[in-house]
Amino acid sequence: MNLPKELSLAEIAALIGGKTEGDAQVKVKSVALSPLTAKEGDIALFFDPKYIAEITKCKASAVLIPDSVKTDIPAITVKRPLLALQKMLAAIAPKRYMPEVGIHPSAIVDATCELGKDVAIGANVVIGPKTKIGDRTKIMANVTIGGEVEIGLDCLFHPGCMIADYIKIGNRVIMQQGASIGADGFSYVTERPSNMELRIAGIKELSDEPNPLLKISNIGTVIIEDDVEVGSNATIDRATMGATIIGKGTKIDNLVMIAHNVRVGREALIVSQTGIAGSSVIGDRAVLAGQVGIKDHINVGKDAILEGKAAVMKDIADQEVMCGVPAQPARDFFNQVAHVRKLPKMLTDFRALQKKVDSLEKALNEKQLVR
Amino acid sequence: MNLPKELSLAEIAALIGGKTEGDAQVKVKSVALSPLTAKEGDIALFFDPKYIAEITKCKASAVLIPDSVKTDIPAITVKRPLLALQKMLAAIAPKRYMPEVGIHPSAIVDATCELGKDVAIGANVVIGPKTKIGDRTKIMANVTIGGEVEIGLDCLFHPGCMIADYIKIGNRVIMQQGASIGADGFSYVTERPSNMELRIAGIKELSDEPNPLLKISNIGTVIIEDDVEVGSNATIDRATMGATIIGKGTKIDNLVMIAHNVRVGREALIVSQTGIAGSSVIGDRAVLAGQVGIKDHINVGKDAILEGKAAVMKDIADQEVMCGVPAQPARDFFNQVAHVRKLPKMLTDFRALQKKVDSLEKALNEKQLVR
Amino acid sequence: MNLPKELSLAEIAALIGGKTEGDAQVKVKSVALSPLTAKEGDIALFFDPKYIAEITKCKASAVLIPDSVKTDIPAITVKRPLLALQKMLAAIAPKRYMPEVGIHPSAIVDATCELGKDVAIGANVVIGPKTKIGDRTKIMANVTIGGEVEIGLDCLFHPGCMIADYIKIGNRVIMQQGASIGADGFSYVTERPSNMELRIAGIKELSDEPNPLLKISNIGTVIIEDDVEVGSNATIDRATMGATIIGKGTKIDNLVMIAHNVRVGREALIVSQTGIAGSSVIGDRAVLAGQVGIKDHINVGKDAILEGKAAVMKDIADQEVMCGVPAQPARDFFNQVAHVRKLPKMLTDFRALQKKVDSLEKALNEKQLVR
Repeated sequence: MNLPKELSLAEIAALIGGKTEGDAQVKVKSVALSPLTAKEGDIALFFDPKYIAEITKCKASAVLIPDSVKTDIPAITVKRPLLALQKMLAAIAPKRYMPEVGIHPSAIVDATCELGKDVAIGANVVIGPKTKIGDRTKIMANVTIGGEVEIGLDCLFHPGCMIADYIKIGNRVIMQQGASIGADGFSYVTERPSNMELRIAGIKELSDEPNPLLKISNIGTVIIEDDVEVGSNATIDRATMGATIIGKGTKIDNLVMIAHNVRVGREALIVSQTGIAGSSVIGDRAVLAGQVGIKDHINVGKDAILEGKAAVMKDIADQEVMCGVPAQPARDFFNQVAHVRKLPKMLTDFRALQKKVDSLEKALNEKQLVR
Repeated sequence: MNLPKELSLAEIAALIGGKTEGDAQVKVKSVALSPLTAKEGDIALFFDPKYIAEITKCKASAVLIPDSVKTDIPAITVKRPLLALQKMLAAIAPKRYMPEVGIHPSAIVDATCELGKDVAIGANVVIGPKTKIGDRTKIMANVTIGGEVEIGLDCLFHPGCMIADYIKIGNRVIMQQGASIGADGFSYVTERPSNMELRIAGIKELSDEPNPLLKISNIGTVIIEDDVEVGSNATIDRATMGATIIGKGTKIDNLVMIAHNVRVGREALIVSQTGIAGSSVIGDRAVLAGQVGIKDHINVGKDAILEGKAAVMKDIADQEVMCGVPAQPARDFFNQVAHVRKLPKMLTDFRALQKKVDSLEKALNEKQLVR
Repeated sequence: MNLPKELSLAEIAALIGGKTEGDAQVKVKSVALSPLTAKEGDIALFFDPKYIAEITKCKASAVLIPDSVKTDIPAITVKRPLLALQKMLAAIAPKRYMPEVGIHPSAIVDATCELGKDVAIGANVVIGPKTKIGDRTKIMANVTIGGEVEIGLDCLFHPGCMIADYIKIGNRVIMQQGASIGADGFSYVTERPSNMELRIAGIKELSDEPNPLLKISNIGTVIIEDDVEVGSNATIDRATMGATIIGKGTKIDNLVMIAHNVRVGREALIVSQTGIAGSSVIGDRAVLAGQVGIKDHINVGKDAILEGKAAVMKDIADQEVMCGVPAQPARDFFNQVAHVRKLPKMLTDFRALQKKVDSLEKALNEKQLVR
């Protein structure tokens, strides 16, 4: 990736907050995609120990390294390499195409909306009545926003997201393409007891007669606090009453499902394809890895870590690390997995032991005869 | 949540079909979000036994309770609390913003479409040729509907849904934001036998040569019967030939995937992120909890219950309750989970028993010597 | 399904490349949906052995059969029935409604775009600056395409897909409804060490202070090679640096998630709701069944098969077949599942054996007394 312009190592160090080692005036004009393919004029980033071991082979003009590493190549040393990368990428990111400030002529913005300063509304955007949008927020093409929505300052909504009526969104919130906020929750009730209710009550005689599922209206909303990001094609449903809440600074990945009345704390990470069922509560900084499933009305503690595909059916304590279907503490899970793998051998050994005991018994009985 | 206007307990009881106990003329003006936070002027809903135990502490002016509960607070008693909630919410639901009757000037509706009475087509909607839409159906902003689609009466399509050509949709169907109906099924064939076919035939020598996956055209359709609801960003693929069918009154949650030629019965509940592979058949009133996966060409019986994350690889009988990966009857599953948890202890005990048998054997042999 | 016109068996055989048996001049006018329901005038397709056994009962005027089957009904025999079906369906597929060549008046196409010959841009499409679209490509209604995107020849983008800036798409690529290409990857870093980093470093004292997750800019792109198909509401994220790459001829099903910097080889099949985490590499012709999850930085070998719901946490060799959570070779997995099912019985037997050994021990001790 080319830098926007040639920079000296000293200039880059100032940008990302590291120290220089060796010739600080060496110039670089691009960032190597991989330390292995770096060439003259590149700065190469060494974060991965397997690459660091091969740093002597690197052909880059300069390197970015953890401060524990030594090299003869002109270098910037940093304490937190990933943070240095974040700053570097922020500095060199190519311009993304954004709608211009103002309302694109093709957008349909209701006359009763209140738009802040320098708001940019893209082509074919549709915004319902009485919606308020804060200063400098950018709404990209083909986004649909309902009525009486409140959106804060400096938000960025990528194309095709869908925000239903009455939703409240804070400042600096990012919606990726196709994110859906405020669809109705999945709640129904039947006029007569359903077959499932009959079974729970121990009644054997079920009915084949129609017993329509009546929709429970969702009169609540979704509140998305400041600095949240919602991934592409993710869905966050509105509450039955009250609000589904996503806490400040929480990040939600693509295709995640958050059901009605869920409350997620602050700075949580919810990875792709995870589903959280109705009314569950997720603690601050909890990490839900990919494809996790959480039952309804569950509490997940602060700083809990749910490994990929964990199926959570009980409350999880603060800082707990959970795995498996159903989820259990990671240590127990991996211990059990290891034991299950030994099970075929154990069964063979067990059958052998049974035979051995049988012959011991026989030998003992014979002895009784000769006694 | 404020009621649209102040109501007496008697008026509310008439609305939701319960009996009053105590002063039926007491007025309430709002519904408490939780019995614990209720205040004067509220009606509080007591459905959860853990709240009912604390009803004496409640500060609401009135309560809604199951008819088995007694209290001194003016009350409405009901047989089916969830049904009462459904009626209450339907009565107090705030108005959602809907497109006005007629065609929004920005919508592109083909001249050959046939629209019923009082149809409402929102901003930037696109509808292809020869599509028919029934009376009072509402199509919200940014929806795309293909050609020769048939849509019934009183449907509601939320923003951003996508309905492909030739799809048939019944009456009172609800599509949530971003639902996708009628995308092509996932079916391919190669000109020469694929490496997978070779392996199944026991041939070891595989090929690295290109062997393109040819798309099998999907000339079938999707039929969605009356009273179905489809969740946000869910996808229902069209059939190879014939139709993918969703039976009357079935409800489908967000991000569900229903593949080509699947047939779902009536009043089934298919919870979020579940996937049903090609040509499987789901019985009436089956409940598929979140993240269930069903292989292709499977039959799931009527009133079957598939617990969250179940992986269904074989046919399921009527009323069966299934769990796990691969799915098995719930009782067996939980029994096995309990046994797997005992496995580390069992292995330790087994090793001890092996040693004990060894020493018994030794003792017995020694006895033989001394006999 | 009606054929576009009545055809003789000989004409159909020429179309799909089979041999005729019996009267090649018999006329058919429709394809039976199922061999069981076929009637006069139909051609019925017999691929499934369970139907072939009942071929004598078939009332169709003609049949399509594998060349190993014999029948008195006029027939076309083929070597690869599924391939014959593919050719038949391609021949009889009804016309789908496509935008006309040119730019629909409601579409917003930036003046700096370069469109090839016979490009068709549908209603309400939005295309950003400097984007190039190859000859004969069709972009259906309500699609959004960013700036500096490159799209090849003969592509078909279904309604509502979202393609972000700078993406590169080859020839003959199909995007199903709502597919999202080029959303930002899910990568964050904190200024101070996060609680998770503290825990990994063995530090017990965690912090409740805010420690915002800083977004790592995604300055890379997505490259989609020729002949790829992307399913409805699937998401493919852009790379942090470099490119997320989908190899030539690979097919991706609905609701699949492919994270930043993933590289998928050629002619792979990625079935619905599968998720592939950042920087993983998928080999040519690998088959990832439904709801598979793959950790970040994993290598999956060529021709590997991952069964439905497999959770891949380690590299997978070429041609390996994997199952389970965590994934392991299919043979081991099913062996273990079988053993786990025997576990309750085994525990009972084990307890019995323990008792038996105890009584043997007792008997032996008593013998010592009587000796």
